[in-house]
Amino acid sequence: MNLLNLFGRRGESATVAKNRLKILLAHERTNDGADAALISSLREDILEVVKRRVDIDVDSVRLEMDRTGDVMTLGIDIELPQEKKAS
Amino acid sequence: MNLLNLFGRRGESATVAKNRLKILLAHERTNDGADAALISSLREDILEVVKRRVDIDVDSVRLEMDRTGDVMTLGIDIELPQEKKAS
Repeated sequence: MNLLNLFGRRGESATVAKNRLKILLAHERTNDGADAALISSLREDILEVVKRRVDIDVDSVRLEMDRTGDVMTLGIDIELPQEKKAS
Repeated sequence: MNLLNLFGRRGESATVAKNRLKILLAHERTNDGADAALISSLREDILEVVKRRVDIDVDSVRLEMDRTGDVMTLGIDIELPQEKKAS
């Protein structure tokens, strides 16, 4: 599951000096396979609530979608500015 | 990062026959370490939007928080009922 690369890059090379927020969604269904529509809706909702908490540089948002058997995964990698919105 | 166990259990034993939604949040800060407050707020917000989309059995929600250096991670493992709310 290569999406885990989003989360597993510790200790390889020097991490780029940026604050980041990474979100991984995985939906496992036992019956009729993965549900892209649910994941897609959740992506929108989650980006919306994240935007309320922190400034997002939209150009820096990286999305990766993957499907393996009954598992639909979505990785969201967000670069954050140094300063945050007051919450 | 043991939180990845939430996502990496493919092929070990037979998966429990439940629909699941798993969410992993990772916050990397380059300056003053991880931000538990942000992750905590996002957890509430994200659970809220997930509840709008799917029925959640609150007793089945499993949370794992972890901190490694400047990375704060939160894993959310949600058991879903077979039927979904109309979206």
